[in-house]
Amino acid sequence: MSMMPSVQYSITIRLEAPAKNTAVSELTSIIELAGGSVTAVDVNHSDAERVRVDLTCACTNSDHATEIVESLKKIEGVVVGKVSDRTFLAHLGGKLTIESKLPIRNRDDLSLIYTPGVARICEAIAKDPSDARRLTIKRNTIAVVTDGSAVLGLGNIGPLAALPVMEGKAALFKRFANIDAFPICLDTQDTDEIVRTVKAISPVFAGINLEDISAPRCFEIEARLRAELDIPVFHDDQHGTAIVCLAALRNALKVVGKKIEDVELVMSGAGAAGTAVLKLLFAAGLRHAIVADQKGIIHLGRKDIDPTSSLGWIAGATNKALKTGTLKDALVGADVFVGVSAANLLVAEDISTMAPNAIVFALANPNPEIDPAQAAKFAAVVATGRSDFANQINNVLAFPGFFRGLLDAGATQITEEMLLAAAKALSDCVEPSELNASYIVPSVFHADVSQRVAEAVRNVARP
Amino acid sequence: MSMMPSVQYSITIRLEAPAKNTAVSELTSIIELAGGSVTAVDVNHSDAERVRVDLTCACTNSDHATEIVESLKKIEGVVVGKVSDRTFLAHLGGKLTIESKLPIRNRDDLSLIYTPGVARICEAIAKDPSDARRLTIKRNTIAVVTDGSAVLGLGNIGPLAALPVMEGKAALFKRFANIDAFPICLDTQDTDEIVRTVKAISPVFAGINLEDISAPRCFEIEARLRAELDIPVFHDDQHGTAIVCLAALRNALKVVGKKIEDVELVMSGAGAAGTAVLKLLFAAGLRHAIVADQKGIIHLGRKDIDPTSSLGWIAGATNKALKTGTLKDALVGADVFVGVSAANLLVAEDISTMAPNAIVFALANPNPEIDPAQAAKFAAVVATGRSDFANQINNVLAFPGFFRGLLDAGATQITEEMLLAAAKALSDCVEPSELNASYIVPSVFHADVSQRVAEAVRNVARP
Repeated sequence: MSMMPSVQYSITIRLEAPAKNTAVSELTSIIELAGGSVTAVDVNHSDAERVRVDLTCACTNSDHATEIVESLKKIEGVVVGKVSDRTFLAHLGGKLTIESKLPIRNRDDLSLIYTPGVARICEAIAKDPSDARRLTIKRNTIAVVTDGSAVLGLGNIGPLAALPVMEGKAALFKRFANIDAFPICLDTQDTDEIVRTVKAISPVFAGINLEDISAPRCFEIEARLRAELDIPVFHDDQHGTAIVCLAALRNALKVVGKKIEDVELVMSGAGAAGTAVLKLLFAAGLRHAIVADQKGIIHLGRKDIDPTSSLGWIAGATNKALKTGTLKDALVGADVFVGVSAANLLVAEDISTMAPNAIVFALANPNPEIDPAQAAKFAAVVATGRSDFANQINNVLAFPGFFRGLLDAGATQITEEMLLAAAKALSDCVEPSELNASYIVPSVFHADVSQRVAEAVRNVARP
Repeated sequence: MSMMPSVQYSITIRLEAPAKNTAVSELTSIIELAGGSVTAVDVNHSDAERVRVDLTCACTNSDHATEIVESLKKIEGVVVGKVSDRTFLAHLGGKLTIESKLPIRNRDDLSLIYTPGVARICEAIAKDPSDARRLTIKRNTIAVVTDGSAVLGLGNIGPLAALPVMEGKAALFKRFANIDAFPICLDTQDTDEIVRTVKAISPVFAGINLEDISAPRCFEIEARLRAELDIPVFHDDQHGTAIVCLAALRNALKVVGKKIEDVELVMSGAGAAGTAVLKLLFAAGLRHAIVADQKGIIHLGRKDIDPTSSLGWIAGATNKALKTGTLKDALVGADVFVGVSAANLLVAEDISTMAPNAIVFALANPNPEIDPAQAAKFAAVVATGRSDFANQINNVLAFPGFFRGLLDAGATQITEEMLLAAAKALSDCVEPSELNASYIVPSVFHADVSQRVAEAVRNVARP
């Protein structure tokens, strides 16, 4: 997998080469021979003897980038200069900026937005706190909160290292739903402390998006915040994933002509995402599911499972036949695989044991449970969480529109009905004429995904 | 005081009037007769019989605005339509927006700033946390933190009602120093809880600006955060005020030809600002000061003062002659008055008892200790905190540049030397040729105030 060059490993190489009419084509062909994909060529200096070229190319990974640079160095007469990494360049100084909506040009402007004028606004809100939704950023601002304990597939990397993800998330909130989102990366992984902190900073926000907080703490944190705050609390890893997964499954089932009530579903991963996906799929009609974690199939006989935990709930709600064994054992004859676990757990042969017209959602980030190209050898529909393959089960299809709907409605709670409505709106974004095995979810750049999800949520929240 | 029309009470009135060539001038003259100041006239419809006009005028206060509207209603043939308040209009939806610095146009952009590309940035920071200052918003982002306990002159109005001030502050940070500042309004006024919360959210920020937190809690909160965080913590009400006050006093003393070592200074207010101003003035050479609070002159004999409190420090550091009595008693013969207390404590006669060439800084917000017009009858130099009078002792002269310097230097602490350097740089922004009794501090729109303050701080922080 990942042997395709990807823009995330894009580098720009400055080179000097002898001036001749094949100078550039020689360089680009070397890169292509080495497996790189040239995406930009900029000759920024040329004289009778030398040309200076900035070559940008996508590589498959960091080692590959190094190999390409080394092969360029071997060309006679070529001098390799600075090599810069596009991903790192893009991140310099961070990805967000906070701007004033109003110009501050003169004393009049100052008097209006700061003292003394602002005092009248403060007094109005002190008199009627609901005016804060009208006269402050609270109206359109949410917090993206993490403790850095379960970041992407990287694990417990802490709050600082999690910040680039939260910034990216905030950028997506703006891009897709015009929501002002600010990253809150907490220097604590204590449940009580997290609950206390989020409550303490809540006045500024109209919603809380929890992100990349590990299970089982995330369940308690979400439940307590929902009970104690008057603004909606959404754990994207749970509910965002669940919405998009259900939307994709609805459409995938149409492609293969099966019904959710009838299929046998196998899930890998019993963490936050898995539990939430399972709950929403059950609410949407799923009846037969088996879940496996690192220790194998979850069943009521497993002694390591606390019956009051979320694993306990899974054990009770799934696997009525009390199957035991490994994930691979569970897969035999299954109609649907949903992976929300870890990279490279499966190979093509495992998929070959599934029922005909199998559906495979391998959603582990950044690397899926199975190489999608391998899965496609035997499955009818394959989806991953990656933006560089078809059928990206990407939460960005859900969370911006979902929060847009919540904010527009002034919602104080999140209900299962809202999640189901959002999933239906999302799957309906794929027109019957568009639906096929490679297009079960709309592109994240589909013109009105967020608006349609928002509308569905708004209609439930404000009937 | 405040009988001048002010833009903070600016209203726009929609009217219809009979069409005649004096239609508009009749309307504007009515407003002017009523004491309003017309700032914009927009005839947005006209036909043979009627004109429709949007008239914008500044009033002295809300009642005055109502009076003006009523007097317009009395004109025969005039129909008054919607009246809108410019300050409230400006605040609709809040004053800040959070934007993505990078375009998100396609899957490549997504792969770069979000998954999977962002994982490489996370891994880099996990490996070397100092990279967060290079690859995230931490580099340029600060928190503007309040508990809403001492907002402007409005008192303990709580976190929600304080938000418009914090948003304004953040807007000023951007406007004057290109700093990304985010408002954190805390739903707690418990010292321990505030310290814990600010520590918990600190990873995202390169600095903390405490704002409008009441004394004496603000001292402990600042001290504990300074001790426990590795980023600078600045309480603007204390240190911002102190910097600008010292800068203004340096220049005011030049105007009247006195030396800081020789003057007798009387301060009204012994809260956070007063204490910090006093400390910085002492560090700059002041020797003789008397402070009065609501109970009168502070002296070592006062039984109500805890010797270990900040009031106790004031009692020990000031009033060597052990004077007793009221603020007015203290003022007799004094060279400098600094008010950091409450509105309308003094009248012109009180200032007449001061020494010749008296300096009056009446800094209470939004309304000063004495009407500056009254003070000017007897004082040689008068300054206030308001943006609608001359000599505005406005913290915005200090805090943006001060933080710019801290962030540029990657400072972890704030020192008195930095405060003194900032004050000197600020007073030096007024050239000798510009200095006069009405211009002891530069305009906040002076081209390079923030840069010069930043440079001074940077030079101390990174010698």
